[in-house]
Amino acid sequence: MKDFVFHNKTKIYFGKDIIKNLNEEIAKFGKKVLLVYGGGSIKRIGLYDKVIKELEKANMKVFELSGVEPNPRHTTVNKGADICKKEGIDVLLAVGGGSTIDATKAIAAAAYYDGDCWDLITHKAEVDKTLPIVSVLTLSATGSEMDGGCVISNIETNEKYGYFAPDNNPDVSFLDPTNTYTVNAYQTACGSADIMSHVFDMAYFTKEDQMEMLVRMQEEVLSTVVKYAPIAIKKPDDYDARANLMWASSWALNGFLFDGLSQSTVCHAMEHELSAFYDITHGHGLAILTPRWLSYVLDEETAPRIKRFGVNVLGVNPSLSDIDGAKDAIKALEKFFFETLGLKSRLSELGIDDKDFKAMAEKACRFDVLHGFTDLTPDDVEEIYRMCL
Amino acid sequence: MKDFVFHNKTKIYFGKDIIKNLNEEIAKFGKKVLLVYGGGSIKRIGLYDKVIKELEKANMKVFELSGVEPNPRHTTVNKGADICKKEGIDVLLAVGGGSTIDATKAIAAAAYYDGDCWDLITHKAEVDKTLPIVSVLTLSATGSEMDGGCVISNIETNEKYGYFAPDNNPDVSFLDPTNTYTVNAYQTACGSADIMSHVFDMAYFTKEDQMEMLVRMQEEVLSTVVKYAPIAIKKPDDYDARANLMWASSWALNGFLFDGLSQSTVCHAMEHELSAFYDITHGHGLAILTPRWLSYVLDEETAPRIKRFGVNVLGVNPSLSDIDGAKDAIKALEKFFFETLGLKSRLSELGIDDKDFKAMAEKACRFDVLHGFTDLTPDDVEEIYRMCL
Repeated sequence: MKDFVFHNKTKIYFGKDIIKNLNEEIAKFGKKVLLVYGGGSIKRIGLYDKVIKELEKANMKVFELSGVEPNPRHTTVNKGADICKKEGIDVLLAVGGGSTIDATKAIAAAAYYDGDCWDLITHKAEVDKTLPIVSVLTLSATGSEMDGGCVISNIETNEKYGYFAPDNNPDVSFLDPTNTYTVNAYQTACGSADIMSHVFDMAYFTKEDQMEMLVRMQEEVLSTVVKYAPIAIKKPDDYDARANLMWASSWALNGFLFDGLSQSTVCHAMEHELSAFYDITHGHGLAILTPRWLSYVLDEETAPRIKRFGVNVLGVNPSLSDIDGAKDAIKALEKFFFETLGLKSRLSELGIDDKDFKAMAEKACRFDVLHGFTDLTPDDVEEIYRMCL
Repeated sequence: MKDFVFHNKTKIYFGKDIIKNLNEEIAKFGKKVLLVYGGGSIKRIGLYDKVIKELEKANMKVFELSGVEPNPRHTTVNKGADICKKEGIDVLLAVGGGSTIDATKAIAAAAYYDGDCWDLITHKAEVDKTLPIVSVLTLSATGSEMDGGCVISNIETNEKYGYFAPDNNPDVSFLDPTNTYTVNAYQTACGSADIMSHVFDMAYFTKEDQMEMLVRMQEEVLSTVVKYAPIAIKKPDDYDARANLMWASSWALNGFLFDGLSQSTVCHAMEHELSAFYDITHGHGLAILTPRWLSYVLDEETAPRIKRFGVNVLGVNPSLSDIDGAKDAIKALEKFFFETLGLKSRLSELGIDDKDFKAMAEKACRFDVLHGFTDLTPDDVEEIYRMCL
């Protein structure tokens, strides 16, 4: 196994009554806060009022940026950065899901850059500091509440890129599972697929040598989603289900499960092109792609790990051969995504045809072939897109 | 389940070649370092020379405190604090196992207190800051490399107390599994029992409601020890075994597995009196106590969790009744500690008789009955000590 560094500075408040700690935590960072959020859902569930009350307690001067998109745009980031520069913002407060927190991270960096934030996202320019970030999470999915990355879209150019700035983890994140009670069945399903895909892409489906304890913990995060996503869909206010999903989402991507692996995040790379071209929900794209990708890369070398996944997470019969066990694992994953979670299984059902597949495949591999479980060329990626039609 | 806060600031370098990062990390904290270590083992394995070379690269002025005891004494802490005050030390560097890191944490606090450090340990006085700490770990056991606590002994008064100062986690810890290749079979066994006991005491054996994902991860840490401790004992330079044990030791106590539980650390409280009175190895005391404690508290309410432990960690037959499964789990744990790991099973074999049991039991319960899986009075504790004779 490879050497690695683990460091995660985010302080997590987890539970039902943790918003009461927001005033004390946010006041540590200064007086002027930019509150960043998406549509009106945080107002509908009463969270906006609770947050404002906390900010008043802390005597903060509050500025607002609302309307962050589900796939957040670089133009929105620029708007936020302009407010930070003009008003001398001390701290950013993201209230929402991964998109809102992602946009906030990009704003935290862009606030220190005189120019279009797209220069930062595309690494034409760099900044060496960022504004502090506090987040209040409302969707269990991206793990953005406890990691340093963000994904920003440029709709004009059909580009969607991941971006890491130094020291860009939220300083403090508030995880109250009850704030996800109103997440509907579709978004719960998509978020759950996203959590699983982080484990798959960042760690589990690899040929690199790994620490056994971490592989087992990856399986436990996956099993947690398999157990609790269906419960949360059936009974949206089940606290245990929402709590397990929420903490699973953070741990899928907070660095602990990776142990120095260096592979590409293959499914995420393929999916980002789908969302960039068609603005579909990220987790749904991942659910459609993942089983087809596994079928495409299945061979004697990859079969044992795919079978192990099936056996330890989805109840596949351990006495099967590696290849047959892997095939059953893929079938069981399809059943989970498309029957248990109720997601549509084909891109054509989302109104997508093959006209952009070649361009998308080339963009997905723009830096290099996708290194992972097996290396994928643009032709491979195009073929996998076709398998999803 | 209860609300909780998770925050762990320690930056971990993990792997074979990570000592090369020491010079850069330590230099961030200043120029004057106090190097703290125990006996000569770090010289015998060549680690002392490597550390000194790194400190030279960083142009540090090096002061030394050696001879930290296996159950570190408050007098040694006072010595270290005196050096810090006299020389204006900027940063502490602990090179060793949990005892050395524990002593270093107490020094980090005592450096800001004018008086006997025992006042801090016994909470007669408080400090509001501590010196920064870097650690290089040589024993997989206590988890001190990634938590904020320490345990210090006063041999004059037969007292051994846990102590938490604010912000007392190591800032950076270097975990190189090859530094544990020379740990002998006995110390490997004791360290492994200590890791398991942290999971038992802090999290697993509880009646409080817990997040299922975390219970499963607790079981994976326990299973990791059960799998790899025997391998490390048989083949001391097995990298996978040493790596899994080392990372398990950190994760057993870094806060992630606890989720807001509020119970006493029952076995640790009972064992600290054994070590305080007889200076035995902490992990060995824990191994002797744990199965007897489980037998003592076994009833209809505790049986399901004890059985679950047996089934998921030690291969106990899941079709047994709760009580029979729990009994088998306890037997399997005894077999693991006393046959597989080769630890002596009785206090009498360590030269301990019952003459201090009453005094030890009263001290173990000095603040209150021990709240945990079931509450224990001094009479209960005394009876458990007797079961271990």
